Amino acid sequence: MACSCKEKTTVVVPNKKVVLRRHVTGFPSEEDMQIVEDRVGLRVPAGLTAVLMKNLYLSCDPWMRGRMRKHDEVDARPTSASDFVLGEALLNYGVGKVVDSTHPEFKAGDLVWGMSGWEEYSLITQPESLKKINHAELPLSYYTDVLGMPGLTAYAGLMKVGRPKRGDHVFVSAASGAVGQLVGQLAKIAGCYVVGSAGSDEKVSLVKTKFGYDDAFNYKSEPDLGAALKRCLPDGIDIYFDNVGGETLDVALMHMCRGGRVAVCGMISQYNLEEPYGVRNLYCIIPKAIRVEGFNVSGYFDMYASFEEVVAGYIKDGKVSVVEDVVEGIERAPAALVGLFSGKNVGKQLVAIARE
Amino acid sequence: MACSCKEKTTVVVPNKKVVLRRHVTGFPSEEDMQIVEDRVGLRVPAGLTAVLMKNLYLSCDPWMRGRMRKHDEVDARPTSASDFVLGEALLNYGVGKVVDSTHPEFKAGDLVWGMSGWEEYSLITQPESLKKINHAELPLSYYTDVLGMPGLTAYAGLMKVGRPKRGDHVFVSAASGAVGQLVGQLAKIAGCYVVGSAGSDEKVSLVKTKFGYDDAFNYKSEPDLGAALKRCLPDGIDIYFDNVGGETLDVALMHMCRGGRVAVCGMISQYNLEEPYGVRNLYCIIPKAIRVEGFNVSGYFDMYASFEEVVAGYIKDGKVSVVEDVVEGIERAPAALVGLFSGKNVGKQLVAIARE
Repeated sequence: MACSCKEKTTVVVPNKKVVLRRHVTGFPSEEDMQIVEDRVGLRVPAGLTAVLMKNLYLSCDPWMRGRMRKHDEVDARPTSASDFVLGEALLNYGVGKVVDSTHPEFKAGDLVWGMSGWEEYSLITQPESLKKINHAELPLSYYTDVLGMPGLTAYAGLMKVGRPKRGDHVFVSAASGAVGQLVGQLAKIAGCYVVGSAGSDEKVSLVKTKFGYDDAFNYKSEPDLGAALKRCLPDGIDIYFDNVGGETLDVALMHMCRGGRVAVCGMISQYNLEEPYGVRNLYCIIPKAIRVEGFNVSGYFDMYASFEEVVAGYIKDGKVSVVEDVVEGIERAPAALVGLFSGKNVGKQLVAIARE
Repeated sequence: MACSCKEKTTVVVPNKKVVLRRHVTGFPSEEDMQIVEDRVGLRVPAGLTAVLMKNLYLSCDPWMRGRMRKHDEVDARPTSASDFVLGEALLNYGVGKVVDSTHPEFKAGDLVWGMSGWEEYSLITQPESLKKINHAELPLSYYTDVLGMPGLTAYAGLMKVGRPKRGDHVFVSAASGAVGQLVGQLAKIAGCYVVGSAGSDEKVSLVKTKFGYDDAFNYKSEPDLGAALKRCLPDGIDIYFDNVGGETLDVALMHMCRGGRVAVCGMISQYNLEEPYGVRNLYCIIPKAIRVEGFNVSGYFDMYASFEEVVAGYIKDGKVSVVEDVVEGIERAPAALVGLFSGKNVGKQLVAIARE
């Protein structure tokens, strides 16, 4: 018996992707990646429970560097996610619109964010990991930063790991970055005195004027990091929110107060080094009873809904500002990602590849 | 009008002391100290609220090394206590008997432990810091170790910082030392699988047979610390109780499980180095969400009373064993202290200077 339903035809369109050409050692370069053009049918294939997503914004985040490395028996560095596969699209959190769905929770037209490919269209076979965008009245790109993964990272890291108290002295490195810009503003809202470091005078100015940090310094032009910390935080540091690791972490340890907390979010200074920096001042944590705690956002998605409401409210009330560094077009994504590691970006780096 | 009361005469006796001759850089030597003979009146001087204590047991602890250093602007390493004063007796927790007291809480004959001098008799001008010995039916020397400062350090560090759960895999360095021996036994009582490292085959044997560790290794004869950890703890480490710092800490970080805790109690491998070891594997704490927490006993004296009852009970029930390395006579105290830093002691190092 022939099927009586009218078969829908599947429109097939081009699908540009950013794929990894080779695994990376040292600093990544644009040549490590390649733009390739594939084709994609704009329907979820029959028999699959999945979502076909049109990607609108790709997010460039330092943690992607770990997935560009080849982890093997020789290089057994722990990682929070599997290595990128050569010849396949890079993966990261992004913002998109549902084109087709066979999953009951999603329908065509839904705006979502979550783990997706660096390509124009992605077939998401684990749609449970996607989240619907509840504040489409705000710029959708915010779901790559202040309302997305970096925002939740900042919020959970400061609130759950740093645990600020009114009057605490907080130091944030990479203070103008996607995470740092929100950490400082949340710490101010929590009643703290907040100092940031950044890698250019322009960023330092942004940190102070746009994000309301009490003070900030350019670590590249300071001859002595310890002297800079002593000048800006003469009474010491209660919370150090670490985005960079390396020497900054080492020196900050010497300036921590008794009972201080180091919330270790990232170590961007270390990701491209084959021989990591050796931290010599760890013994400080004993006499001063300091907690140094690493964390990553994967442990905190259960608090996403409350985070989204709180921070969307702050944005609407003008209590939180956002600075984004947006490039247009998927072709420019490799350069944007590489630029992160030399601090070329000012604010959150992202790539706009389509406008709905 | 002449006073009608009969003036008590004050007996004056010799008082040998161990004094610091010079501040120490690098490894301490016996020549950094000197035995001098002073004299002391066996009465609290008129007008003073104090306790005159006859010292019975002196305790040798690694943390004393920090106080032998001269801290100045050039060497601004944080410390939990002031530098020892040249020409004065060294200070540490010890066990003694009250000879005379003008403090209402103490009377002659009381057995006490607390901060005292390395001398035969000490005038304690802050007697509030002394604690009465509630279990004199146990060896009094236990109040230099399992029921004293090292015991409370082990208990608080494991329970409050490490927070063991049944089935956790626990690694303890310096496992036969004053702190390590109790940590392992408490972790076993808490239902953990416990592995220790120590610096001789004799100590390794002690750790396994006397303290009931599930496994142990001699770090001095292992060609590869990482391989030793992988062999003894193939599923990784949930809690690392660190007494040594340096390379052991660095390698252990690579073997921590997700959500692991490093309770950093001491870094004896580092105390005599002018240039501390650089820890390269700290980045592990991010993907694995590891907490590295320094602590010192000073934050936990409020739990001493409950600790004393719990651990005294364990000792009486045969659940906790104690191994002490006792030398006789104050003249041998400098050598005993110096020996700590080459691991000469087997078990808790202490000095018996009088028997009541």
